[in-house]
Amino acid sequence: MTTDTALTAEQILIAAEEVLRRFGPAKATVVDVARELGVSHSSVYRHFPSKAALREAVTQRWLDQAHFELKAISEDSGTASERLQHWLSTLFAAKRKKALDDPELFATYLVLAEENSAVVDAHIETLVKQLAEIFQDGVERKEFKPAHILSTARAVFDATAPFHDPVFAATWSEPTADERFKAVWKLVLGGLKAK
Amino acid sequence: MTTDTALTAEQILIAAEEVLRRFGPAKATVVDVARELGVSHSSVYRHFPSKAALREAVTQRWLDQAHFELKAISEDSGTASERLQHWLSTLFAAKRKKALDDPELFATYLVLAEENSAVVDAHIETLVKQLAEIFQDGVERKEFKPAHILSTARAVFDATAPFHDPVFAATWSEPTADERFKAVWKLVLGGLKAK
Repeated sequence: MTTDTALTAEQILIAAEEVLRRFGPAKATVVDVARELGVSHSSVYRHFPSKAALREAVTQRWLDQAHFELKAISEDSGTASERLQHWLSTLFAAKRKKALDDPELFATYLVLAEENSAVVDAHIETLVKQLAEIFQDGVERKEFKPAHILSTARAVFDATAPFHDPVFAATWSEPTADERFKAVWKLVLGGLKAK
Repeated sequence: MTTDTALTAEQILIAAEEVLRRFGPAKATVVDVARELGVSHSSVYRHFPSKAALREAVTQRWLDQAHFELKAISEDSGTASERLQHWLSTLFAAKRKKALDDPELFATYLVLAEENSAVVDAHIETLVKQLAEIFQDGVERKEFKPAHILSTARAVFDATAPFHDPVFAATWSEPTADERFKAVWKLVLGGLKAK
């Protein structure tokens, strides 16, 4: 039971995730979220003006969780190649863990992502910018060949799509997945270094 | 009206595609296909023992259409880099054309592909083998750096997935699609040539 006045947006988002997990994206309502928290639905609406706004914020929070760890890696010490490999393999590992550990919640988030494509686009833009920072640093250190920063960063993101785009989640448990990731990584790294 | 004795498997497959287009994959039946041809359903069953077998053959035919043109490109004259670029851009163009020219039929084939994943796996294997032949030739001509042939070919296929995997069809009409394809191609080519 949460007292009405102390209720935070974060508490609502955690409860909303739990409700979505339990009832699925088609059935979950704001009233369910309020009941989960032991508050009135108007208390929830004070933070999120509509069911759509709440679902958007839940999607945002889910996607943001990936950013912090990756941001730290992109600003790490070490060569740009090392950071890039670490960044891409961490992204793959995080997505794979989410998909395999809790497939139902993952499927729920796919529905939410479909509904909130602008949030997903902003998420991808944030990730591509992190890649761009690593790439730019690699060019400055003469590890990588100079090229258009943002379009090269996007190309790295696109070329590794089979290892982070949720549409490929079903392939992530295949025994060859890691080997295939390594082969693409080798190709990408060679492409960035190529004179 | 087709006389029963002259009925070929190819005629049935063409009629089945037309019926699938008209009724959708959920409703189309073997009786509809027989009616379309003006034959009895037993005439259809003589060629395809079940509805599932017919749908599998329709899927196979749809996927095979891509192979012939690509096979010819893989065996073309010209450098391996030229052939590889031609092969990848032809695959992208063909998939994009199918997806954009007739979105309903494309959606129908996505359902059929989902049902017949073994056929799809064999299709991908055929394509990766064509890529492997171009890559091997490039290594022999010293255009490309020696590397494991099949896993490198698979890496090229995986890295270009955003430009041939049907799950990305919605992005193929975006104005940046060609630019993004070129950036990935540049990265891949650099990776294959990298010393």
